Parts: sequence; structure tokens; C-alpha cells
Amino acid sequence: MTVNRQWLLAARPDGMIGPQNFAYAETPVPELQDDCVLVKNLYLSFDPTQRNWMIDKPGYLPPVAIGEVMRAGSVGEVVGSRHADFSVGDLVQTAGGWQDYALVAPGQGPVGLNKLPPGVSPEMMLSVLGITGLTAYFGLLEHGQPNAGDTVLVSGAAGATGSIVGQIAKLKGCRVVGIAGGPDKCQWLMDNAGFDAVIDYKNNDVDAQIGHHCPDKWDIYFDNVGGTILEAALNHLNLYSRVVLCGAISGYNATEPVPGPVNLMNLITNRGRMQGFIILDYLPRAMEAISELMAWVAAGDIVYQVDLQAGFKNIPSTLQRLYTGQNTGKQLLKLDPAP
Amino acid sequence: MTVNRQWLLAARPDGMIGPQNFAYAETPVPELQDDCVLVKNLYLSFDPTQRNWMIDKPGYLPPVAIGEVMRAGSVGEVVGSRHADFSVGDLVQTAGGWQDYALVAPGQGPVGLNKLPPGVSPEMMLSVLGITGLTAYFGLLEHGQPNAGDTVLVSGAAGATGSIVGQIAKLKGCRVVGIAGGPDKCQWLMDNAGFDAVIDYKNNDVDAQIGHHCPDKWDIYFDNVGGTILEAALNHLNLYSRVVLCGAISGYNATEPVPGPVNLMNLITNRGRMQGFIILDYLPRAMEAISELMAWVAAGDIVYQVDLQAGFKNIPSTLQRLYTGQNTGKQLLKLDPAP
Repeated sequence: MTVNRQWLLAARPDGMIGPQNFAYAETPVPELQDDCVLVKNLYLSFDPTQRNWMIDKPGYLPPVAIGEVMRAGSVGEVVGSRHADFSVGDLVQTAGGWQDYALVAPGQGPVGLNKLPPGVSPEMMLSVLGITGLTAYFGLLEHGQPNAGDTVLVSGAAGATGSIVGQIAKLKGCRVVGIAGGPDKCQWLMDNAGFDAVIDYKNNDVDAQIGHHCPDKWDIYFDNVGGTILEAALNHLNLYSRVVLCGAISGYNATEPVPGPVNLMNLITNRGRMQGFIILDYLPRAMEAISELMAWVAAGDIVYQVDLQAGFKNIPSTLQRLYTGQNTGKQLLKLDPAP
Repeated sequence: MTVNRQWLLAARPDGMIGPQNFAYAETPVPELQDDCVLVKNLYLSFDPTQRNWMIDKPGYLPPVAIGEVMRAGSVGEVVGSRHADFSVGDLVQTAGGWQDYALVAPGQGPVGLNKLPPGVSPEMMLSVLGITGLTAYFGLLEHGQPNAGDTVLVSGAAGATGSIVGQIAKLKGCRVVGIAGGPDKCQWLMDNAGFDAVIDYKNNDVDAQIGHHCPDKWDIYFDNVGGTILEAALNHLNLYSRVVLCGAISGYNATEPVPGPVNLMNLITNRGRMQGFIILDYLPRAMEAISELMAWVAAGDIVYQVDLQAGFKNIPSTLQRLYTGQNTGKQLLKLDPAP
């Protein structure tokens, strides 16, 4: 335990991210400080929003600086503690970044540190109980405000957020239509996640298919992708419908600005609401969501998929999988032991 | 009283509306029926949304049919009544359409009939107390939800709706920045309507000027125009801000679909809400707004401008004034006496 491997942000992205944006480094393992905890990362979380942290534009978090360790959620093991609440051996969820070891000061600064609840695996903690599960939970329930009988349309439906959105909507008595890329993802949504209908955007006219599968239009559209699919969706909104703007992954790696939907007027005609949100605002209420999601998973009412890659050297290419649609479910990576 | 002059919808518009879209006709004055009121139109209201009624697309009201009298709000005089609530000589507000005489069945069908409150002129009834005033009132208060100290940005600020939005926002303790076309409109907003700052979109970089006049960004954007001004506005939204989508006049006469804003992602980052609405939903609460607006006008807290044209033959060209920005304030037309 002497070397701390790291992937640093080396260059801001222009277009699709790739190896050119990151630089490998080895530094000494941080020394433990008072009131701090030293965490050895075991699993890293990959999230579409990470692309937004890499650009030099004010966002909901400060941009990662050039030369700084790439920011990422993680689950790790406490290997040193000078904090009363944490002991060596604890499994913890934090934002440890793309490195082997992270020094965390619980309760100080923006990086949280939470012990995994009993019986919860790292994979579960970083997927259905993690940021993506919480995003699905609060985004759908707080902003979508589903009523039994509503039709809920979800894009990025096979993703870590979309798949949970659809299943919570089913639990609330809604009819759920997903949009996903490729037959395998669509099959999984129908067979395993209990969606009522799925549209393969790679092989269909999405606009026509939404019309076909939402004969009474939709009441909630949970949007993870933006772009042309958002525009197609806005042709089929019901009166007093809600668009939950969660993400716009279709445009994150674009080199030119992506035009917005031509049909925003439909929001006026149909008295629609489009609401953006950031899950950070709901973290103080995380336990509400986690306890309900745990119960649903235990009862078999919610299933989730994890796409687990491995190896420190594969971290940058694993992030890229999100934007090419290669991942099936929540993208994670298990770190190999530090040298 | 034998001839009923009418302007009929003759052709659906493609691009800017003009005389080619309407046909003049003369028909007999309708015969009075049981439970009906015969109204002689005196003043017609012109509203940007009329362009939307002319196209063959499902909207919040059925499209006007080809060969049908063009739909329009109006104030008229009762010239015949077989309804207990109305007497000959009453001044009434209704949707009489582009014709001299309208037969209205109060309480049946979509067309309402309301007596003018005492002391209220036709011009006042069709402007600050009419659809545009109510749109300003409910749009701002219900969907904008202004708090004292908020910065409120308004486009179409010199228009019949925008000018009232800004003045109500001032009464609620907000700082108000308007966007309008040309120095005369801007001057009126500063000198008469009490706006804190005004941007002339015809002679300025709107994006830069919003940044300049909203140093703390805006909390509410009341959008009457859509298009590039909406996009510029979305570069300057505050956290938890509200976009009130009222209209998108910049695109109503476009021949090609107008791209939406490239920066909808800013709604996510800033947890922004974009809400469309239609004033028809609030008509059951109209008296709330009318009584408060009347009091504000009486106290001199709200001023309004009426652009009064005249003459039956000028009806089509008067509608066009709205889309070319020629009108100063609420566009009305006083009918000359029927032949």
C-alpha cells in the first residue's frame, strides 16, 4: 500500500470522449489526517453526467480541473480512520474518484461518506440504491407525479435510471412504454422489467411508434436522452402532462449545439410542464428512497441490471461505453488490487 | 339592419397571413332564437393566437373551418334577446367573430357572454380586463409564482400581455426587465409602465443585454415570443427558475419549423421549470383577476395601451399588424356601422 494509481483529466473533451482526455498517474497514498477516513476504492460508478463535469462551463458542480483526479462515485473499504463514525473494514459509498485511495473528511466539503446498509452489496449500492436509483425515484415521484392509469413514456429505458423509472411507474399503477436501443435491451425490458411496450429507436420511426403504443398519448415523459427523441415525444403529450428532464445524453458528445425540439408550442396547447432537476437536491431525503427501493427489490418488484467491467486500465474506455450505448444496465467497474 | 357583413376563412395560411386568407361575404342578419341573444359587434379583439386557430391542426380549440366566420373576441351591444339575463342595450363581451351580428346562446356551447361591469369601457374590457390581461395575471401569478426580490424577464414586453405582466410583477416587489422591438416601445415601458430595464431586440445582442440587465440572472421568464429570444433567455436562468410559456409569436408565421433552444440542458442544471398554459382554464376564476386588475387600474398602478384601428374592411390587415410588430399595446378595431 504505497502507490495510488489515478486517472487525471488531461484535456477537455471536444466531441466523443476517449483516451486522449485522461492521463495515468501514480502518486503516494494520501496520509491519514485528523477527522478523516482513508478509503480504498473497490467499485466505480459510471454516469452520463460525468461528461458534463469535464467541460469548462459552470454546472451544478464545479468542473473537474485539468490535472485533477476524475470525479466518480465509488464504493470502497475503510483502510484507515480518525473519525469516530467509521472503522477499518467498513464498506462505504462515497465519491472516491478514479483512483485507488481517497482521503475523505466526512461532514466537511461536498463529498459524502455513507456505510452500506446491512445486506446491501456494492453493486446494489451503486445502482438501484445509488444515484441512478434515487434519480429515478425522486424524478418520477416528485416531478412526474404519477397517478394510477397514467401512461408513462421513458427514454433511455434500459439504462440504470430509466429501467427503475419504468418499474416504479408500474408499481404506481401506470402503463409504461420504454424507448431503448437494440433488440436485447428491448427484450429485457419486456421480459424482466415488466414494461407494457418498448420501442427500439435504432430500428423504428420513433414518432410513429410512440403514437402506436400511446393511443391515449402520454401523461409523463421521463427524458434521459433529449434531441430528436424528445421532439418525437412532444408530438404525443396529453393535456396537463409532465416532462421530467433528467438528462440529454444524445447531445453530450456533440461537437455542434443540438437544436431543441421544434414543437415546444405543444407544451402550451396541452398545458404541459417540463421540469429539470438534479438529484443532489434530494440527497437529504435519500433514506426515504433507499428504504422503499430495498423493500421493492427484496419483494422482487424491482429488478436491476449491472454491467460490470474490471481493471484499472479500463476505466476511461468504460466511461465511453455509456455514450455508445454498449452498457446493459448500470455501468460499474471493479478495480483490480493496487500494485 | 338586414345585412350581416362577414370575413370568412378562405385559405389556410402558409407563411405570413394576409388578405389571401380571408373572403368577404354578406349574409342575412341571423334570426333571434329561443334562449339566445343577438349581439351587434362594436369592437374586435386581435390576438396572436388567432393565427393558430387558422391552421388545420388539433389545438386547444378546434380549427376555424374553411368558409367559417373568423373567430375573434369582441364587445358588442345586445340588439335582441330571448334570454332572461340579457336586455336590449346591454354592452357585452363575447367571441362574436369577424362579422356585424352574432347569435349567442349563453351557457350553451363554448362561446361565453358577459355584461361589462359598470364603468368599464369596451377598450378596457378587451385589453387589461380581457383575455390578454387575464393571461398576464394568471400566467404570472399561478405559474411564475413571483416572490419579492425576484428578477422577472418578459418578452413581447410592450404587448397587451407582456406590459401587464411586468406591471403586476412590479406590484409584487420584483425587478422587471422587458424585451421589446424598437425605441418607442422601450421608451413607453420605461417611462409609463415602470420597467426597471428594457432591451430593444431589434438593435441589440439580446443574449449579452440580458446578461447585462440581469446581473443576478432571472427567476421568472415570461415568454411571449419563443425562438432565438427564448434561447438567449435560457442562458441566464437562476436556480429553481420558472419559464412561463405563454406564446411563441416569432414562429407563428414561419414556413419552416423553427428549431427549439439548443440549451434546454440549462433547465436541468438549474432545476428550471417550463410551464405552458392556456387562459381558457382560468376563465371560471376570471372575476378574481378582473376585480384586482380594475382596482390596480383605478389606483393608477397599472397602465395600458390600446392600438385602435377602424373599419370593417381593415379587419384582415389589422390582424397582420400583430405579427409585424406594428401594434403598440392591445390591438383593437372599432367597427363602422353596418350598411
